[in-house]
Amino acid sequence: MPHLVILYSGNLDARTDLSALCRRLADTMLAQRDEAGKAVFPPGGTRVLAYPAPHFAISDGGTAGRAAGGDGDYGFAYLNLRMGRGRSEAVQQAVGRALVAAAKAHFEPLLATMHVGVTLQVDVGAEVFDAKLSTLHPMFDKG
Amino acid sequence: MPHLVILYSGNLDARTDLSALCRRLADTMLAQRDEAGKAVFPPGGTRVLAYPAPHFAISDGGTAGRAAGGDGDYGFAYLNLRMGRGRSEAVQQAVGRALVAAAKAHFEPLLATMHVGVTLQVDVGAEVFDAKLSTLHPMFDKG
Amino acid sequence: MPHLVILYSGNLDARTDLSALCRRLADTMLAQRDEAGKAVFPPGGTRVLAYPAPHFAISDGGTAGRAAGGDGDYGFAYLNLRMGRGRSEAVQQAVGRALVAAAKAHFEPLLATMHVGVTLQVDVGAEVFDAKLSTLHPMFDKG
Repeated sequence: MPHLVILYSGNLDARTDLSALCRRLADTMLAQRDEAGKAVFPPGGTRVLAYPAPHFAISDGGTAGRAAGGDGDYGFAYLNLRMGRGRSEAVQQAVGRALVAAAKAHFEPLLATMHVGVTLQVDVGAEVFDAKLSTLHPMFDKG
Repeated sequence: MPHLVILYSGNLDARTDLSALCRRLADTMLAQRDEAGKAVFPPGGTRVLAYPAPHFAISDGGTAGRAAGGDGDYGFAYLNLRMGRGRSEAVQQAVGRALVAAAKAHFEPLLATMHVGVTLQVDVGAEVFDAKLSTLHPMFDKG
Repeated sequence: MPHLVILYSGNLDARTDLSALCRRLADTMLAQRDEAGKAVFPPGGTRVLAYPAPHFAISDGGTAGRAAGGDGDYGFAYLNLRMGRGRSEAVQQAVGRALVAAAKAHFEPLLATMHVGVTLQVDVGAEVFDAKLSTLHPMFDKG
C-alpha cells in the first residue's frame, strides 16, 4: 500500500513500453504532497505492477473499428490504485489527476493511432487486516 | 468500466479456450438491457481479461480427487465483474444470472471431466476517483 | 471464495518458490478453526493464485538500495485474501495473523538478502451477486 496495478490487453506490449509507464507512474506517486507539504506516499511502499492479459475481448471485437477505417485491433488498459484510508478528499483527487496526466502523456501517441481505452480508478482500501514484512521501508525510514 | 477479470489456474489453458470464454462473456454483457430497454453497458467500455496463474494451490492439492477416482488435478476460475454505481438491484441480479449462464455453457464439458470450481462475483465499484482516456468510446457515441 | 491472490514483481521467481508459498498459504487457510472449532474455510473453496508481474516499478528504482550496499534490485509481493461476510472479527484477525506467520516463514531468507516488501491485506467481499459452479465442493460435502 499504495499499490497501483495495471491490467491491460496483451496486444499493447508490441505498441508501447509498459515498464516505462510503471516507472513514470511510480515517480508521479512519489512526487505527491499533501496540504502540509508532506509526501502522500511512503517511498518504501510505492509499487506499480503491470499485467498483460493473454486472453481478452474488448467491445464488439473490431467491427466498428474496421468500419471506421482502422484495423479492428482494440486495446485496453485499466489502472487501479489502492491507497490507504485517512487522506483528505482533496489529496485523493489531486493524486487521481496527477496519475491521469501521467497516463495521458504516456498513451497519447497510442491513442492517436489505435482504438484504445484507458481507465483509471482510485480506491480507498477497506481491509479488515493489514500487515507488512519489509526490508524496503526501514531503509527510507532511517533516512 | 465495466471490467470483467478472470483469474484462473494455469492448468486450464490446455483444457478449455479462455479467449472464447472472454468473447462469450463480452457478448453477454453487450446484450444486457435495463428496465427501459437501454443497454446496461456501453459498447466502448465493455472489456473482459483472463489471466492464467502460473503458481497456484487449490483445496487439498489432489488427495480427495484421487480418492474419488480422478487424477487429482484440480482447476479453478474466478470471474469478477466490477460495474459502476447507479444500476438497480434487479439489473445487477439479471447481469449476474446471464453471466453465470454463459459461464455454465462454456465450462459444462470441463466440469463433467475434471474437478473444477468456477466462482462469479459482481462488485459495484466504490472508487473515489475515476477518469477515462479513450478513442474507443467516441466511435460508438457518434453512432 | 475464499481466494488469496498474490501479485508480485517478476524478479522474485528466480529467488523464491512461489508454488511452495501458494501451498503453504492454502494449508494455513485449511487449518483455520473458528470459536466453535469449525473449519473457517470450506476445503473445496480454498484457492491461492500467484501472478508475477513482467513490468513493475518499486520505490525509487534502486538508488537507496545501492547506497545501502545492495544491488538496487527491489522485490515486492502483495498477498490479498478476499473472504466472505459473516465471520467474527476475531476470526478475521486470527486468519490474518496465521497468514502473516506463514508468509514470514517463507520470505525470511529472502528478506535477509534482498530489499523486499511483503504486504498482506484481508478484505471482506462486498459483492452484490455471487454464484458457483463446482465439481470440487460436492466431493468434500459428501464426506
